[in-house]
Amino acid sequence: MRELTPETITDAVLDQMATTPDPRLKAIMASAVKHLHAFAREVNLTPGEWIKGIEFMTLAGKMCSPERQEFILLSDTLGLSALVNGLHDKTAIEEGTHTSLLGPFYREATPTLKAGSSIAQNPKPGSECVLYGHVTDAGGKPVANATVSIWQTGADGLYDIQSSATSVDYRGVFTTDSDGVYVLRTVKPLGYSIPMDGPVGAMVKAQARHGMRPAHIHFLVGAPGYRELVTALYLRDDPHLADDVVFGSSGDLAVDVVQGDPDCPIKGMPSIRFDMRLSRESEADKTSGRVGADPAAIMKQARSGEKATA
Amino acid sequence: MRELTPETITDAVLDQMATTPDPRLKAIMASAVKHLHAFAREVNLTPGEWIKGIEFMTLAGKMCSPERQEFILLSDTLGLSALVNGLHDKTAIEEGTHTSLLGPFYREATPTLKAGSSIAQNPKPGSECVLYGHVTDAGGKPVANATVSIWQTGADGLYDIQSSATSVDYRGVFTTDSDGVYVLRTVKPLGYSIPMDGPVGAMVKAQARHGMRPAHIHFLVGAPGYRELVTALYLRDDPHLADDVVFGSSGDLAVDVVQGDPDCPIKGMPSIRFDMRLSRESEADKTSGRVGADPAAIMKQARSGEKATA
Repeated sequence: MRELTPETITDAVLDQMATTPDPRLKAIMASAVKHLHAFAREVNLTPGEWIKGIEFMTLAGKMCSPERQEFILLSDTLGLSALVNGLHDKTAIEEGTHTSLLGPFYREATPTLKAGSSIAQNPKPGSECVLYGHVTDAGGKPVANATVSIWQTGADGLYDIQSSATSVDYRGVFTTDSDGVYVLRTVKPLGYSIPMDGPVGAMVKAQARHGMRPAHIHFLVGAPGYRELVTALYLRDDPHLADDVVFGSSGDLAVDVVQGDPDCPIKGMPSIRFDMRLSRESEADKTSGRVGADPAAIMKQARSGEKATA
Repeated sequence: MRELTPETITDAVLDQMATTPDPRLKAIMASAVKHLHAFAREVNLTPGEWIKGIEFMTLAGKMCSPERQEFILLSDTLGLSALVNGLHDKTAIEEGTHTSLLGPFYREATPTLKAGSSIAQNPKPGSECVLYGHVTDAGGKPVANATVSIWQTGADGLYDIQSSATSVDYRGVFTTDSDGVYVLRTVKPLGYSIPMDGPVGAMVKAQARHGMRPAHIHFLVGAPGYRELVTALYLRDDPHLADDVVFGSSGDLAVDVVQGDPDCPIKGMPSIRFDMRLSRESEADKTSGRVGADPAAIMKQARSGEKATA
């Protein structure tokens, strides 16, 4: 048999994995092994550094719970989530509004509200603003009856479920009218820090990064016949617009808070306009999945996986 | 600000990590991000595949305990551990016997035994053999008083601690004599399967790999002034010598069970000879660490890390 060396080990692994029946799994694992090995060779990874990596992953695993997903946070802070979103955008059959991170705070249980309602239950005086926009197809034609789910932080920089698992605030589902318009009242969101008390936070600190996300509002938009859109608007005047710790913010998603916008359907308040274009749905889109998930759903999956293999 | 796309995201991440004060951490993370992104781009990783990866890592984290290290098993089955060992061998100031995997069954608490003792407490009749060899420096000069720690499976293919956490069998520490010779009695080891009841086992099954390690005996050898050697011998006649699921076996570490070896210090039994060459120790070797660890030590580290960052 051959002698395994740093030069021959990669081929030995690929040879052994060549029996993989599923061609997609085979291609993904072959690429993963090639790049993992190329990384270790490039930096000449030492045994001591390797064990630090094992300890890091073990700690990240320990942090995961129904409320917390440390591996998604790792993917986010390494720019992997943003990259996968960008690759996903490229597979659309038409160019729509670009995807941005779903994040860990989306919940299925969100109240459906009438146009013009406020999603902020106790807004601080002076913090209120109007949020509206047009949902169109890729050619600019209005999409009526689109479902627009919105969630954001309050004026304290916290999501409702960070105060209490059962509270519902700063989130709502709206429907576009015959002109494709959605409109609601809310408060201007604040930027905030990702959770810094785990191994990912320790990594971000060791890299002297600030850990901040710029102020943003999340959107999940669906309409029959169109590809689901997960995106967010970002406030252009936020000091961290250009260095979001999870690489969600992007120039094409930046908007301004405007005084006296003549097009705004509700007058007398500052307003944010965020228009979105939807791509028509392809067959592949129906099963393509979504970057990001409710941590509880992943833990459920992980637990059922344990049972299935036990 | 720039628009983030699959083409620009990697540079945006590297820019943000450029503040890292420790130059080694900066270099490792930059290389890791470049290869992680190149992998995702190469396979056009979909959101659905990404979430499967998150679920896999979450499950692996859940499997880790003081008795089980699923991330080391993942590293082993992807050939990363063998690669890091091979890179470590290349940094030795002299070429000694090559490193092989420490594995998860090494324990500090191993009895020190006299030359010629048996490490098998209840060997099956006919399974016994002699294990001996010469420990030398890289030039072939005997190394006296070297500490040779040995551990292996019994004739049932199990390590002592797989039956009971406190049992001690099939392991012992020996010292080389003035000719650099170590000698003991043991049983011929059996090949065995890695644990297949976790996510790594599910991966190995999905790849239609057999999950087997060829029969082997582990060695940890130390002597003042020499680089610590972690290695193993592999039985040449094992059917899985060429496709060890963790890529530890290598042609240069394969040995035969021999009848009537005239050089064997104990007569009348089959014998295995395994000679080892030690490199002199460099300054860097004193802190280089080791690939592989007692899972309990990693969990302790993970727990103290949680406390430190809480």
